[in-house]
Amino acid sequence: MTFIPRRGVFACMAGFMIPANSQNGPRHGLQGKVTMHPGQRGALAQILLEAAAVVGRAPGCEIYIVGISEAEPDDVWVTEVWRSEVDHDRSLTMEGIPSIIAKARPLIAGGAEAVRTIPLGGKGLTS
Amino acid sequence: MTFIPRRGVFACMAGFMIPANSQNGPRHGLQGKVTMHPGQRGALAQILLEAAAVVGRAPGCEIYIVGISEAEPDDVWVTEVWRSEVDHDRSLTMEGIPSIIAKARPLIAGGAEAVRTIPLGGKGLTS
Repeated sequence: MTFIPRRGVFACMAGFMIPANSQNGPRHGLQGKVTMHPGQRGALAQILLEAAAVVGRAPGCEIYIVGISEAEPDDVWVTEVWRSEVDHDRSLTMEGIPSIIAKARPLIAGGAEAVRTIPLGGKGLTS
Repeated sequence: MTFIPRRGVFACMAGFMIPANSQNGPRHGLQGKVTMHPGQRGALAQILLEAAAVVGRAPGCEIYIVGISEAEPDDVWVTEVWRSEVDHDRSLTMEGIPSIIAKARPLIAGGAEAVRTIPLGGKGLTS
């Protein structure tokens, strides 16, 4: 059985070489959209900005941006880029994050979507 | 007729005060997905990384990241954050950008979607 490094698999998928950013394989990106109960968007956005202040200090967090959309008055967008998926997973148990998640949960109407991406490069990445 | 500052309108929409980032009103965010002809994703991603190197130097460009998704083998994602929509619009005529757009166009299968957002804050913004 031949060992194929994880980075190599993704490089093949992309059809070209993915720029190295760490020894952890490809970056991990998430574009999430959370749908709130009517009138709760502002409250959730504030909670997610609190979360950003915490996870923004986590090892491997390159981007964590909270946004809204004019077109969708009950939705909040979160755009994340991590050095690796492992770094992202570790951040979920950081001090303060479980309580922030518990505070946000009642405001959410049930809908949450996330697109997983592999960020390849560009402006705004830190490593 | 009462003059309402543009920033004030968006602050009201969000249900709370949007952090100031410039005198130009709210930030401008785009989450775009472009669907390529089969096998062309790698080529387009390379072209968009070239674009990132140019527009990343544009005034007001905070984030311009090119990514792919495991789930969608013909799609390329672009995540942009600008200080203002005006800064974004100006970037489209920067030297080198029209020729990059012309190079990319034949690779695109026709599908392109973009969600406009108003980034409120978080990790990775520069101003």
